[in-house]
Amino acid sequence: MLSLAHKGLDFEERPLPFTVIPTVEDGFSRTVPILRDGDQLVSDSFEIALYLDEAYPERPSLFSGDGGKAMARFVESWSQTVLHPAITRIAVLDIHNMLDEQDRLYFRDSRTKALGRPLEDVVANRQAEIAAFPALLAPIRRMLSFQPFIGGTSPLFADYIVFGALQWARITTGADLFSENDPVRDWFEGCLDLHDARGRSVTAA
Amino acid sequence: MLSLAHKGLDFEERPLPFTVIPTVEDGFSRTVPILRDGDQLVSDSFEIALYLDEAYPERPSLFSGDGGKAMARFVESWSQTVLHPAITRIAVLDIHNMLDEQDRLYFRDSRTKALGRPLEDVVANRQAEIAAFPALLAPIRRMLSFQPFIGGTSPLFADYIVFGALQWARITTGADLFSENDPVRDWFEGCLDLHDARGRSVTAA
Repeated sequence: MLSLAHKGLDFEERPLPFTVIPTVEDGFSRTVPILRDGDQLVSDSFEIALYLDEAYPERPSLFSGDGGKAMARFVESWSQTVLHPAITRIAVLDIHNMLDEQDRLYFRDSRTKALGRPLEDVVANRQAEIAAFPALLAPIRRMLSFQPFIGGTSPLFADYIVFGALQWARITTGADLFSENDPVRDWFEGCLDLHDARGRSVTAA
Repeated sequence: MLSLAHKGLDFEERPLPFTVIPTVEDGFSRTVPILRDGDQLVSDSFEIALYLDEAYPERPSLFSGDGGKAMARFVESWSQTVLHPAITRIAVLDIHNMLDEQDRLYFRDSRTKALGRPLEDVVANRQAEIAAFPALLAPIRRMLSFQPFIGGTSPLFADYIVFGALQWARITTGADLFSENDPVRDWFEGCLDLHDARGRSVTAA
């Protein structure tokens, strides 16, 4: 969504219940996001960002060069291997509890299998995970002492990757995941304000 | 050193004992590396890489665009806040023990102050730190499932940053910091072979 706004493209957004995703676009993808652009279908947010930069090269880049494209994959990998598992250990039961009944059944079953234990066990150390979370943001915190965004002087897709993980945490759990006077919080708030403050209007649902 | 080789520049390398650094180039920098290029003096490996790309734009780029320049700072920040502290908790006493007497005194004093406790306490959980280290490399491991280098299809300065941290560990401690059949080990070995296998000839001296 921020990638589309970054490119200045008009779009319509359709939030999907988990159990509806496989029925959309003839079962094109088991996961969201899915982008339909004319007759093009693309799934996965990184693939979508790559597609948008290729399809609309005259609009602001999401990567700003080949090096940025390559290193955004490292940023994504950091977010996926460090932030996502920690957020899961904090939020997985909150997410479950905000779903409707059909999605709840699907979510509990698929996540219990994926995580290898009951959701209640996954969040057993929730308070300790919340307390430990700000330390995980140390790489962003140090980077912010050099520049205002992961993308440098202005945000790129790499910022939206990390923002997306923290936004996911924000809308599913009430936990404060920043430290006191945390520059990462200021960066996150700045991201919420980007592109007509689109991020602020996103709620659990 | 790999940055200079990457740019295809001739250079002479002068390893410096800790206690000699402040006397070099009229006390230009308290830390290494220091680059002298004609009448230019630059310290700090990131600053040196930026300088080289600006001074020699016709040679292979170390960043490959503005996005790469910005995101390399995130890679550096990850290395500095995650890998360096862990390597310190594994290697600080090994480093101390390989120094000559004058450097030992300086090193023990400065590191004890910086770390807030005796070096022997810092490495008290050395075996557990070694066992936990491969998990810290998860972002690199996942990234390698998409591309062979942090820089993409070929290495950039971002690769040399992470390589440098692991090379520092390699030459100071005998510990194996990779998991079994670790793609990160293969990437590291590939980096050792870059630019006429310069990395392989580096020893504790």
